[in-house]
Amino acid sequence: LYSGEIRKCTLIPGDGIGPEISAAVQKIFATAKVPIDWESVDVTPVRGPDGKFGIPQAAIDSVNRNKVGLKGPLMTPVGKGHRSLNLALRKEFNLYANVRPCRSLEGYKTLYDEVDVVTIRENTEGEYSGIEHEIVDGVVQSIKLITEDASRRVAEFAFLYARDNNRKKVTAVHKANIMRMSDGLFLRCCREAAKKFPDVKFEEKYLDTVCLNMVQDPLQYDVLVMPNLYGDILSDMCAGLVGGLGLTPSGNIGLNGALFESVHGTAPDIAGQDKANPTALLLSAVMMLRYMELNKHAEIIERSCFQTIKEAKYLTGDLGGKAKCSEFTNAICEKIAAS
Amino acid sequence: LYSGEIRKCTLIPGDGIGPEISAAVQKIFATAKVPIDWESVDVTPVRGPDGKFGIPQAAIDSVNRNKVGLKGPLMTPVGKGHRSLNLALRKEFNLYANVRPCRSLEGYKTLYDEVDVVTIRENTEGEYSGIEHEIVDGVVQSIKLITEDASRRVAEFAFLYARDNNRKKVTAVHKANIMRMSDGLFLRCCREAAKKFPDVKFEEKYLDTVCLNMVQDPLQYDVLVMPNLYGDILSDMCAGLVGGLGLTPSGNIGLNGALFESVHGTAPDIAGQDKANPTALLLSAVMMLRYMELNKHAEIIERSCFQTIKEAKYLTGDLGGKAKCSEFTNAICEKIAAS
Ligand SMILES: CC(C)[C@H](C(=O)O)[C@@H](O)C(=O)O
Ligand SMILES: CC(C)[C@H](C(=O)O)[C@@H](O)C(=O)O
Repeated sequence: LYSGEIRKCTLIPGDGIGPEISAAVQKIFATAKVPIDWESVDVTPVRGPDGKFGIPQAAIDSVNRNKVGLKGPLMTPVGKGHRSLNLALRKEFNLYANVRPCRSLEGYKTLYDEVDVVTIRENTEGEYSGIEHEIVDGVVQSIKLITEDASRRVAEFAFLYARDNNRKKVTAVHKANIMRMSDGLFLRCCREAAKKFPDVKFEEKYLDTVCLNMVQDPLQYDVLVMPNLYGDILSDMCAGLVGGLGLTPSGNIGLNGALFESVHGTAPDIAGQDKANPTALLLSAVMMLRYMELNKHAEIIERSCFQTIKEAKYLTGDLGGKAKCSEFTNAICEKIAAS
Repeated sequence: LYSGEIRKCTLIPGDGIGPEISAAVQKIFATAKVPIDWESVDVTPVRGPDGKFGIPQAAIDSVNRNKVGLKGPLMTPVGKGHRSLNLALRKEFNLYANVRPCRSLEGYKTLYDEVDVVTIRENTEGEYSGIEHEIVDGVVQSIKLITEDASRRVAEFAFLYARDNNRKKVTAVHKANIMRMSDGLFLRCCREAAKKFPDVKFEEKYLDTVCLNMVQDPLQYDVLVMPNLYGDILSDMCAGLVGGLGLTPSGNIGLNGALFESVHGTAPDIAGQDKANPTALLLSAVMMLRYMELNKHAEIIERSCFQTIKEAKYLTGDLGGKAKCSEFTNAICEKIAAS
């Protein structure tokens, strides 16, 4: 299995169940002899010289140096002036495309079978611009910012992703019937990107229509690309179809690096009790391996994870089982060792 | 059955299948001896003295006079400068609350059973403000406008609705973690309204969380209140859970009148062929009857409609049957006549 040099990856274990599920991933990676050296960093905000809280410089340097990172769930610090750390990281590293594949897992039954969709979300602007004003008392405006650069970038990314992953279709999701200029611009960029990829089918759909179709017949969709907020909504909805955020991976892709993360919460109620399900973080780590072109390692780990869930002998509580996180992890490791 | 004076209602039959399903509703209402006199109006936009297209004055006058109207689906005219007529009507009459109940129909199977949720959507502002600018080439902003007045109005409406309809809980749906000021203001208004209705349970949820929960366990929700765009999305999604827009009613409530409408499309492919399903418009008309406190008529018509669907002898094509619109309508009329 071992091939080539050892590469460094930043690891942000995160809060709550973060450290346990990160340890699980590290153990599985070690078993699979993944040629990765983890550099663990703390991102607890520190007060800078300007008095504002920010991500510690050491963490920023690590990601910038390594170009790839894996991240567990982070708590948003309480108190005014603290914005979500998850968002701060996306902004800091200009991670412009958020990729969330949602696939039905064999052996874990939900109402839906054979779901296989990927949401690609613009990750830097839109409704997440952070620009808001109170015009007069009781009148507030929030600005949805759509730029041609960011729209084109993510639209082209979606088509590249579709092509590289043997996907058949990209659906642009929008409300350009209402936000004619902003979603209109986004849509135009998608149309232009589509022209450069004649082998990938392209279609345009209203967000409300996609939401309706998705609960009735998710199999009609493949890759979906959309502005920031719509991606937030649709990716959660799609995760719901296949079992929730504990099972779905996520990658934030930038020009200069990428950060893979589980997007579930920190689950403080079960933290430290060896009860958490590491699947979402593990599958995010698998996405990271593919990003690094460590495809063979990705394959073996993913297969062993799916197989363990399918056999249903060692499932954590969230999947209706009684296994500890470590038992589930060991079951995966055994399959890897045996292969 | 007959009680009191005959009241006038505006009828906007609409485009495509609009006229046939409107005729079906009229026939059913006549059979049930509903004391309503329909005033049919055309809303095809006309060019005003200022050169701009608008709703014809006669239609506006009719709604203003009658205070209640029923509306079939409308096509948005093609060409620049035409905004959606559906939206124009909501704005013209200041219909601030959009109410969409989604209930599983006995006899029409979907993946979900016993869904019973009502989305209440702010209907006049938010992401639908229509205010957009191109700041510089390739940089567009759309303004989401949230006011205290509109937020308080719709929040109080939601609690009133919950109380009057024996509902147990109101969920405020928001992204105040991202749009802190605008969704924050909306949320604050919901909290304040909640205090005035101590008998109705109140909770706050992120939009993405609601989308995820809704596909996994919709029974945890009851009444939901939210800004405009979120309502557009969630109402379609909920409709999808119970069978789609052909089965779900909608009411737009204003201070000074109300307009009830089916929110499906004009279905030009089957228009004029006696194939359309009038259920969504009929159930919207039933909502209208309850709004007018014609509860007995509402009861009989609704029951006959549900019964006809449950018996599944005369179902239109969209429900997997072969009946014509007129056959389905007659089946409902027979039940009404027999009761
Ligand atoms: C934690 C929150 C700020 C975030 C978002 O809204 O993007 C989350 O919902 C996500 O999808 O990553
Ligand atoms: C037709 C369209 C403008 C409208 C909307 O976006 O509100 C529709 O989707 C609805 O839900 O009534």
